[in-house]
Parts: sequence; C-alpha cells; structure tokens
Amino acid sequence: MNKLTIIKIGGKVIDDSVALDAFLTDFAKVEGPKILVHGGGKIASDFGEKLGIKPNYIDGRRITDAETLELVTMVYGGLVNKRIVAQLQARGVNALGLTGADANVMAADRRPVKQIDYGHVGDVSEARVGFESLSMFLMAGLTPVLCPLTHDGKGGLLNTNADTIASMLARVASQVYEVKLIYCFEQKGVLSDFENQIVIPQINAVSYKDLKSQGVISDGMIPKLDNAFDALKSGVKQVTIGHFSEVSQLVGGKATGTVITL
Amino acid sequence: MNKLTIIKIGGKVIDDSVALDAFLTDFAKVEGPKILVHGGGKIASDFGEKLGIKPNYIDGRRITDAETLELVTMVYGGLVNKRIVAQLQARGVNALGLTGADANVMAADRRPVKQIDYGHVGDVSEARVGFESLSMFLMAGLTPVLCPLTHDGKGGLLNTNADTIASMLARVASQVYEVKLIYCFEQKGVLSDFENQIVIPQINAVSYKDLKSQGVISDGMIPKLDNAFDALKSGVKQVTIGHFSEVSQLVGGKATGTVITL
Repeated sequence: MNKLTIIKIGGKVIDDSVALDAFLTDFAKVEGPKILVHGGGKIASDFGEKLGIKPNYIDGRRITDAETLELVTMVYGGLVNKRIVAQLQARGVNALGLTGADANVMAADRRPVKQIDYGHVGDVSEARVGFESLSMFLMAGLTPVLCPLTHDGKGGLLNTNADTIASMLARVASQVYEVKLIYCFEQKGVLSDFENQIVIPQINAVSYKDLKSQGVISDGMIPKLDNAFDALKSGVKQVTIGHFSEVSQLVGGKATGTVITL
Repeated sequence: MNKLTIIKIGGKVIDDSVALDAFLTDFAKVEGPKILVHGGGKIASDFGEKLGIKPNYIDGRRITDAETLELVTMVYGGLVNKRIVAQLQARGVNALGLTGADANVMAADRRPVKQIDYGHVGDVSEARVGFESLSMFLMAGLTPVLCPLTHDGKGGLLNTNADTIASMLARVASQVYEVKLIYCFEQKGVLSDFENQIVIPQINAVSYKDLKSQGVISDGMIPKLDNAFDALKSGVKQVTIGHFSEVSQLVGGKATGTVITL
C-alpha cells in the first residue's frame, strides 16, 4: 500500500503570515503523496466586520447565513486557499487548491434542521467523497489543498468543519493508502495541564472517556478527537495532534504531540 | 487532432446571477473538452467599496496595489470562481476552478515598471503556461474554470486580464488541439453602429486596421481583438466574439457574432 500523509492546519497559524510561512516550508519537505486541509482562521471574522456582516448565533452556535457563506467563500476559497497554493508553488510543491465543489471532491448534505437551522452548513459522508479525482491528482504529483467548503450538488456551497473534512478524507483514502492523519494547531498536543503546557502523549478510546468525564478534555477538543477516533475506526493507521512548528517530527512519529490510538 | 473549445465570459454577465445561470446552462451543453475563463465583473469594485479599498489610478490606469490584490483574490478566486464551479457541478459538468497558481497552470512575470508601476499585475507568455496539467484534467473529463489570476512562482499572485489568459491558453492548446476560442460578453459582437446594434460579421487583419483608423473600433475592444489575432497567428482555428446568450450558436459556427480571421 502506498503511503499518504494528510495534514490539517488550523487555528491561529492561518492568521499569522510568519508562522504560516514557516509551516509551509516544513510541509513542503514532507515526502511522498500528501494533502493539506486548512481552516479559516480569524481573518474571515475580520473581513466580516469590515463588510458589516454581523455574526449570527443561535443558542451559542454560529449560523452560516447567506452573507456569511459569501464571506467564507471569498476568504477560505479565495484569499487563504490561493495564498497557500502560491506559497507552496514557490517551495516547489505543485499545489492544487480545492473546495469540495472542484472536481466534485467532496459533496455534502445541508445539515437537517432540528432545534437549530445552521444555515449553509454541510455534513459529509464517505459515500460523497470523490476520491477518484483526488487519487488522480496525487498520482500526477499534485498536492491537493482543501479549504473548509463543500457543495450540495445543486449549485450551493456549504461551510464544513476542516477537522471533519480531514478525517473524512483520511477515512476514504485509507481504503487505498496507508494514511497518516495529523492535526496541527497552536498547542503542543492535547494538554492535561494548560498552565504548565503538559502534553498527554497518548490517548486511546478508554482513556478518552476518562479524560472527558474528568473535564480534562472539553470544548473544541472533543469534536477534534471524535474525528480522530472516527478515522482510526475506518482504517486510518495513525492520528496525531500537535504543534504546527513540529510537522516533520509529527510525520516522522517522533515523541511529540499526542498520538491517538483505538 | 482533438477539438477543444475555450470560452471566455466577462462583462456584466458575471454580476447578473440570472444571466450567468442561463449562460452556464448553455455552457454545460457544449460538447467535448472545454475550458471556461471568467472575468471579474463589477462585483469586486462593490466589495472594494464596502471594504473601504479606494481604486488607485495612475494616468487613468487602474493599479493593483496590495489591498486590491487581496480583494481580487477573494472575489475572482473565491466568490466568482467557486460559485461558477458549484453551478456547473449542478449541471453535470465536472468543473475544476483554478488560478494560475493551481497546478502551476499559468505563471507570469510581474509587469516591468516603465512609466507606470501597475503593481501586482502579471504578463503571461506561452513558455509559462502549464498545459500538461490542463491536458491531464481535460483527458480525465474535468472542465477547468480559470479566474483572472496568475502567479509569479515566488509566492505572489498577480492580476491578469481574462481575455489575455483565454488567448494565451488557446495559443498553447493549439499545439495539440484544434481550438475554438470564443469571447462572450453583453454585446452581439463587434459593433459598427452601437445605436442600431449593427454587428460586423467578419474582421480580418486588413479590415481591422481600417476599422481602427476610422475609429469604429476603439477602447476596450482593441486589446480583445489584439488577443484574438495573436491567437489566430499562433494556430488557433477559430476566434469568435459574441453575446453570452448565444453560446451554442457561436460554438456551432452559426451566423451570429463577429468571426475573426487572419
């Protein structure tokens, strides 16, 4: 089986051009077929403010209304994605920027309305990943760079969580590749002690339950870890969570970050 | 030789979602390998105004300063390009949105500073078109959708005229394809009489000179026609200029629009 590295980059690094540059230099050195998935960063909120687009929340959940969809299409699909692609080209990586609509690589279903109508938000599934095109791109030596947008197949774009996109890609890719999935952000890994920056070196399904019930793992880390476990259950070989400045170590399996196992 | 149709769509149709929808429905019906190149439309100026980005002119020429480059990267590369891609997917066209940086399909040189520094503007050349990737996409049944952005290979994106991108693509493609190049906009063709909407059915190199010296052809039409002649001189089989609502007739070579010949 050929190897494939899928790296998700998110959090503050997207908004910090110096940190992003350094990350892209490290990413360029990762050997073999690879895919980059990036989040949106705070930059969308900054532009939204300038454009007078007010964030719309229901019960504390951000809603993707029509204006917000326009905003994220511009910022995620345009500004952030194309900057990363151009910067990777300068580093000798033949990058190809994609939304889920491009080459139909990831279609999604608009999230059904239950208590909350999340608006233009897409939920992905294995069946709707167009991995054939991605596989062709990889075999041609291209490096797909995905932004957190999918499409509904009816002409509409949908806002989709970048962690989920990375996990879903890894799940489908693991049918034909030996996949390493790496989540990079501004923390050194999953922390047991934020103040002293103590990283939990390994989490498995059992310890995950304990850490959640003890409140050590909470908030935004829970969906990230759920995505990691989903990927492992679907055959992804390795999932690691770590700092964006330690990409090469994380890819190499060196003792840094948090390794997730079943 | 396989046939390839390259259609450039620009002008007011980009800003008019009803007209754009109708155009995309017609474009979806064009048979065989095809490439769509789109312009920016007024929508970038509208967002620029909202963002407080003042258009910067020197001697009547619009300058692409850093803020304007951000703006067009968002609007051309994100909003306009991804909307078109999603709409084409809904019509069964496996579209793939691209800037020149994506898969390195079109690198460019930043325009040298003579009297005017145009800023982040790129001049393209046959040598820097990455037609290998485009050819692979076409053979895989994908329909490339290019926005008017190229890159300098050093990490920077560049604003590039969409007519020129279409002409340059046609020139390089004509080495391996029998290429039809069609410029679509809100006029029925090149007009000899704007008031009565009289279309010039055919223009060749000789009549072009006459029409220019008589002032019948002026302003924005001159670079478009220069691009058309450049394409023909490089082996493009047919160049037509016509209305965006008549795509199928223009592709089929029916008597509509202006046919350009050497």
